Amino acid sequence: MNLHRKVRRLSGAFVAVMLFALALTVHVNANAQSSVLPSWNDGAAKQAIVSFVIKVTDKSGTNYVPPEDRIATFDQDGTLWVEHPLYAQAMFALARVHELAPQHPEWKQHEPFKAVLTNDRETMAKFSESDWEVILAATHAGMTTEAFQELVKQWLANAKDPRFHQLYTELVYQPMLEVIDYLRANGFKTYIVTGGGQEFVRVYSQHVYGIPPEQVVGSSIVTKFEYLDGKPVLMREPKVFFIDDQAGKPVGINLFIGKRPHAAFGNSTGDQQMLEWTQAGDGARLMMLVLHDDPEREYGYGPAIGLPDTKVGTFSQALYDEARSKGWTVISMKKDWKRIFAFKK
Amino acid sequence: MNLHRKVRRLSGAFVAVMLFALALTVHVNANAQSSVLPSWNDGAAKQAIVSFVIKVTDKSGTNYVPPEDRIATFDQDGTLWVEHPLYAQAMFALARVHELAPQHPEWKQHEPFKAVLTNDRETMAKFSESDWEVILAATHAGMTTEAFQELVKQWLANAKDPRFHQLYTELVYQPMLEVIDYLRANGFKTYIVTGGGQEFVRVYSQHVYGIPPEQVVGSSIVTKFEYLDGKPVLMREPKVFFIDDQAGKPVGINLFIGKRPHAAFGNSTGDQQMLEWTQAGDGARLMMLVLHDDPEREYGYGPAIGLPDTKVGTFSQALYDEARSKGWTVISMKKDWKRIFAFKK
Repeated sequence: MNLHRKVRRLSGAFVAVMLFALALTVHVNANAQSSVLPSWNDGAAKQAIVSFVIKVTDKSGTNYVPPEDRIATFDQDGTLWVEHPLYAQAMFALARVHELAPQHPEWKQHEPFKAVLTNDRETMAKFSESDWEVILAATHAGMTTEAFQELVKQWLANAKDPRFHQLYTELVYQPMLEVIDYLRANGFKTYIVTGGGQEFVRVYSQHVYGIPPEQVVGSSIVTKFEYLDGKPVLMREPKVFFIDDQAGKPVGINLFIGKRPHAAFGNSTGDQQMLEWTQAGDGARLMMLVLHDDPEREYGYGPAIGLPDTKVGTFSQALYDEARSKGWTVISMKKDWKRIFAFKK
Repeated sequence: MNLHRKVRRLSGAFVAVMLFALALTVHVNANAQSSVLPSWNDGAAKQAIVSFVIKVTDKSGTNYVPPEDRIATFDQDGTLWVEHPLYAQAMFALARVHELAPQHPEWKQHEPFKAVLTNDRETMAKFSESDWEVILAATHAGMTTEAFQELVKQWLANAKDPRFHQLYTELVYQPMLEVIDYLRANGFKTYIVTGGGQEFVRVYSQHVYGIPPEQVVGSSIVTKFEYLDGKPVLMREPKVFFIDDQAGKPVGINLFIGKRPHAAFGNSTGDQQMLEWTQAGDGARLMMLVLHDDPEREYGYGPAIGLPDTKVGTFSQALYDEARSKGWTVISMKKDWKRIFAFKK
């Protein structure tokens, strides 16, 4: 055998060994991946998440993202947990109105309190933003930050939602918890970026999502440093400080995180600018929107599935069209999720 | 030997072994600790830091703090780096005025720009807060967040301070870098909580202090989400959003972190409320103030060392008295620090 042929034969053996190793790797990866996101059906949505993670963690690829820049942001209401028929925080506010009513006999005669106290659903359904602001000011302010968090904690430990009869913190979407875990296992820092109250969500974010308070960005009211009986406290004032919704979301992300997300998850027009801001960065970016098209297991609402517009979580037709044209992934709760809640198989 | 005496003798042997083990432990700890904070002289200040860390990390002690609650906050100007005779960010602003002057011929006739452009130190020394606001609005706004950060980066890479002829980022205090590292090695999450510009400090916080942008809390101006040539951007507006100084520091800490620090470091009345807020929590807390009493190696200023009040970093006599009465530790740069800068042995 001349040297030339010997090299060729050895090369052949080498190639065969490499091919076998490669096949083994692919097999192992495929197996490993069938165990990630177990509550997701196979399909474009699950594939988008897995492909994105493989891309940004592959050190040899052009889309590699160093761990310190792996930021993922999640809207909360309607994206991580149920927001229908009313946000949990709104339910908390209504419960507080009932609780505080004996100290405010004048509320019986004045809207928006009157409607709440008489359980006048028709009027409540028509509450304007400013009606809600009046309710929030009356129920969320005038106390220290610590007193407020204690109230939220107590309410969450007892209040149950009207349809599933579960604690609100049980109404989180199991598939989204798996996405949070999966991203975190791949070096991502996961943030909640919510239009809801920052101090409200921080009470349970660690316990429910494994997300610490400092990784919750949300709307806030003014707090004021004061001395109460000589002790420094932070008092919650009945005045809006920051609205973390719509164009406020990229502003909030820049303010609190100072980095552009590589992955962003939402479900409504409140998340539109966050997804646009995410996509405008270089390299691989993942933009996803949860579509509520499963009235049997959860809820179905919004123009994007041919239903009338609702006040909560508007997935408008325009947003749906933008998602299609920009290549954002729409998650169908009905088709993409094997299971919705941990409490229900 | 009766059983009673046997037990006593065994007990005695046991106690002796335990005492020996204890002595060994103490010896090992002492040795280990002589290698921590190498730029600190032995004394009350170094001891306060080391004792605090031992206390909060001792799982069997009553002062144990779980890692997720180990939060330490550091003021920047005058606490982590030189602030005299002017903050680095003010030097940046003045340099920007010179740079932008050709586009603003009217500045030659108008204060506060005129004084800056003619290098009229006497007038500049008397600049009011509103003079500085005019300068900040002219130099820090009207551009995207990314353009601003690029300007800061370029300036920091070139500008040198007038006394030491070093890049500003070299003017950090080596002993404080060691405290940051030491706390971090003991599970602390370290934050900068500065009256200076949040977006300014975030440019170099990772590189200089090992503190990522999301752990920098500071003052900020309004940013606005806009589309520039169809691309979403955040524009910096000439309008104050949040002042992270004095009573604003505990407010900022609650807003950005949502947890009360266990250790807080400052050097002026701007840090007073942060230290009070820190101390008002339960369990072991560490409050420290850097005193600028070393004109030879750094600077000496402030009423607390018998000098006139200065605009930057006021360590007032009242603050000094409060520190004494509340048991806060005052760090004497002169006595407690073996070395001040890394660039100078």
